[in-house]
Amino acid sequence: MEKIGVYAGTFDPITNGHIDIVHRALEIFDKIYVTIAINPSKKTFFTIEERLKMIKEIFKDNPAVEVYSFTGLIIDFVKQTNATAIIRGIRAVTDFEYEFQMALMNRKMSPKIETVFLLPREEYSYLNSTIVKQLAQFNAPIDCLVPKIVKDMLIEKMRNNHHLS
Amino acid sequence: MEKIGVYAGTFDPITNGHIDIVHRALEIFDKIYVTIAINPSKKTFFTIEERLKMIKEIFKDNPAVEVYSFTGLIIDFVKQTNATAIIRGIRAVTDFEYEFQMALMNRKMSPKIETVFLLPREEYSYLNSTIVKQLAQFNAPIDCLVPKIVKDMLIEKMRNNHHLS
Amino acid sequence: MEKIGVYAGTFDPITNGHIDIVHRALEIFDKIYVTIAINPSKKTFFTIEERLKMIKEIFKDNPAVEVYSFTGLIIDFVKQTNATAIIRGIRAVTDFEYEFQMALMNRKMSPKIETVFLLPREEYSYLNSTIVKQLAQFNAPIDCLVPKIVKDMLIEKMRNNHHLS
Amino acid sequence: MEKIGVYAGTFDPITNGHIDIVHRALEIFDKIYVTIAINPSKKTFFTIEERLKMIKEIFKDNPAVEVYSFTGLIIDFVKQTNATAIIRGIRAVTDFEYEFQMALMNRKMSPKIETVFLLPREEYSYLNSTIVKQLAQFNAPIDCLVPKIVKDMLIEKMRNNHHLS
Amino acid sequence: MEKIGVYAGTFDPITNGHIDIVHRALEIFDKIYVTIAINPSKKTFFTIEERLKMIKEIFKDNPAVEVYSFTGLIIDFVKQTNATAIIRGIRAVTDFEYEFQMALMNRKMSPKIETVFLLPREEYSYLNSTIVKQLAQFNAPIDCLVPKIVKDMLIEKMRNNHHLS
Amino acid sequence: MEKIGVYAGTFDPITNGHIDIVHRALEIFDKIYVTIAINPSKKTFFTIEERLKMIKEIFKDNPAVEVYSFTGLIIDFVKQTNATAIIRGIRAVTDFEYEFQMALMNRKMSPKIETVFLLPREEYSYLNSTIVKQLAQFNAPIDCLVPKIVKDMLIEKMRNNHHLS
Repeated sequence: MEKIGVYAGTFDPITNGHIDIVHRALEIFDKIYVTIAINPSKKTFFTIEERLKMIKEIFKDNPAVEVYSFTGLIIDFVKQTNATAIIRGIRAVTDFEYEFQMALMNRKMSPKIETVFLLPREEYSYLNSTIVKQLAQFNAPIDCLVPKIVKDMLIEKMRNNHHLS
Repeated sequence: MEKIGVYAGTFDPITNGHIDIVHRALEIFDKIYVTIAINPSKKTFFTIEERLKMIKEIFKDNPAVEVYSFTGLIIDFVKQTNATAIIRGIRAVTDFEYEFQMALMNRKMSPKIETVFLLPREEYSYLNSTIVKQLAQFNAPIDCLVPKIVKDMLIEKMRNNHHLS
Repeated sequence: MEKIGVYAGTFDPITNGHIDIVHRALEIFDKIYVTIAINPSKKTFFTIEERLKMIKEIFKDNPAVEVYSFTGLIIDFVKQTNATAIIRGIRAVTDFEYEFQMALMNRKMSPKIETVFLLPREEYSYLNSTIVKQLAQFNAPIDCLVPKIVKDMLIEKMRNNHHLS
Repeated sequence: MEKIGVYAGTFDPITNGHIDIVHRALEIFDKIYVTIAINPSKKTFFTIEERLKMIKEIFKDNPAVEVYSFTGLIIDFVKQTNATAIIRGIRAVTDFEYEFQMALMNRKMSPKIETVFLLPREEYSYLNSTIVKQLAQFNAPIDCLVPKIVKDMLIEKMRNNHHLS
Repeated sequence: MEKIGVYAGTFDPITNGHIDIVHRALEIFDKIYVTIAINPSKKTFFTIEERLKMIKEIFKDNPAVEVYSFTGLIIDFVKQTNATAIIRGIRAVTDFEYEFQMALMNRKMSPKIETVFLLPREEYSYLNSTIVKQLAQFNAPIDCLVPKIVKDMLIEKMRNNHHLS
Repeated sequence: MEKIGVYAGTFDPITNGHIDIVHRALEIFDKIYVTIAINPSKKTFFTIEERLKMIKEIFKDNPAVEVYSFTGLIIDFVKQTNATAIIRGIRAVTDFEYEFQMALMNRKMSPKIETVFLLPREEYSYLNSTIVKQLAQFNAPIDCLVPKIVKDMLIEKMRNNHHLS
């Protein structure tokens, strides 16, 4: 039976740290579903369509990676798609505690679905989407933090936002 | 290609917490190699033979679990057996930091071999081999902490040790 | 002299984890004052009246539990009511640090009033009011996370909010 | 009914940090049993008799404090003496995790007996018996870390040990 | 060559904990640049001018302390001023993780600029600007938490805000 | 006045992680005293003479680094040499807590001497002397973990130890 891992997040935007986790997960699983978790009450910088576009572009040559978006609890997405496990990257102790709580809650709701934790590359241990946006805002170099398409869309969107305001 | 996870430890003795991790790992991997890591300079309560006997007995009906012992770095065992990943259970933050360091060191030596972290059942979060031996020493009940064969061998060995001293 | 413990929080809404701490505290203290800490600048899902109603209903058969609301520093409430100590549940390391800082600040202001930390049941270690509201929003089952009255008021309030928007 | 707290430890030797916790616990409990936990397989600097002598001397004027020694699991001592709760001081996150595991194990064995955590004075947050012995070994001042009787017995014992070696 | 340390923050308002770090840093560095980091998208209680006024007043007799404000990444300020290092106070584990990530990101952008961590006095370990504002809001005493000028401006500003609302 | 930092440790043996900290500290301080802290009751793999020889060889071309050994509390060494501060590398949260306690104890004994924390390179975050010895014992490559002289002396000493046993 095919082993499928679900890697869900806000991905606003996806970073090299996230992409690194996907590649590591591909060593373990046959397929990875990269899934944008939509939370209607949380404002994001990029629209769902923009985020889907970036992620699909990044993994377009890898047939083992499929890209989705989903509104609701991620555990429900895992069940609906008959996936095997939830994949999470952990970088730090504070991450770990929150992740631990989420994993135990998900296990309570679906005892058969495991949460699998993977470590990103050390140099991505400080990396997250908020820092990328802060750096871009102050024109700091972000070339080694995100793929080219993310950098381009970030710069363009920031330029447009400034025009509007 | 078959996915093989290596779950290594001292297992002195194996507990229900370890066994729980093996069962969770079987949801992800096709095979699990439960491997006793032999450290010649570290004294153990049970001999290697006793530990092998207990673990083999416990998993005797599960053909997806194979039991080994190995002297050396566990990453070398993973490479020699063409396994896919190292499996680790994490229970707490302090665990996590040590595990994180080991995983990064292993990755440095073998970049293609991942370390996969799984969470044991909440009720096993306080459980380790040292606590089991302490409880047995004071005749506290350990039935829900270890399988019957471990309990029996623990009690017998403690009785024999007393006779000797 | 009667020993009184003050258990304060936002309780938006109260969960089985909070209730578990109250029952544990009753083993130590003669009386527990469950106190809604009102912060005028913080928006809540339930009104003060709704939260008082739920908590009073839950503990209506337990004369050792009294329910209050209070605007101000909780240490002032403890002093005004001649209570003995502040009760806090701790679930995780990140909790612990924040709690530690609050306890030391309160001790600075009132050296004679202790903060007492208790551990909730393991299965409530992932539970908090935010998670309960998220689960309810996506119609996930919350029966083992909150009492029936909380579940009913949560569902009703969410339905009414939708009608409005 | 009288509320009794058991404060157990190796107390090798007792420090001002331990004594501070006893005084704080006396605000909550009617009686405190300060109990030396004897572990036959662990070597200590002071004998049980020496440790009992020091602790009894320190609390000799406080009838609410009783001093005991006990071989076995501390939870059994609590049950045998009909005490209410176990008292633990926590100073730091790493403490907390170990304490958390012990408390959950004790709860499993005796669900009705709570573990109560208290914070020592900030200036004792770095203090433990090992540091006191290290400081004494190098003749550093320890007057504000332990009571006079502990300091005197520490210096005398170190002098005698040197004579022997 | 003169060694210059940059101590940046929001300082909304500066507390005795911040001031303590500046004094400790002066033991190591020849000059300290206390720098208000301006984040245009973050609302503050005090204006930049008010914060500059308070900090300049506090250090007016110390020629080794210079006060600045800066919009952008703090690492750029360090480079523009030819400073030697970034100074950070750490109080707790959760602090530490965030600080660690920031320090590694800054190092990536400027490998020659170190981040130096110092510990504040134990009694300031619970202190931050948010707590000071909360205490002031409820008329709790803050005399030992902030200098007189900060206390006065805090009380005045809170009174004015109330008049407006 | 010259700023001197004391970097003390067991250095059994010194690793690239330690050397990295020394180089970072040289950006801040005018001189670094690398000091072997001798603890007579702790067994080491290398003798004091061997450790001194390795460290002196490594820094022989850097006049700003002086190498010492010292029996006693490191704070006394700092005072006797009129040094400015103690330097510590921190790699992880568990490190941090222990270091925090030591720093506060040292401050109590000598309020004017600061402890300064620096972060090693990310790739050294998992590195310590024990791991180096374990790797060498199993003939794993250690070239990027220690300087050549340390590697050579480690291999030679391990060979000699085997001859003896």
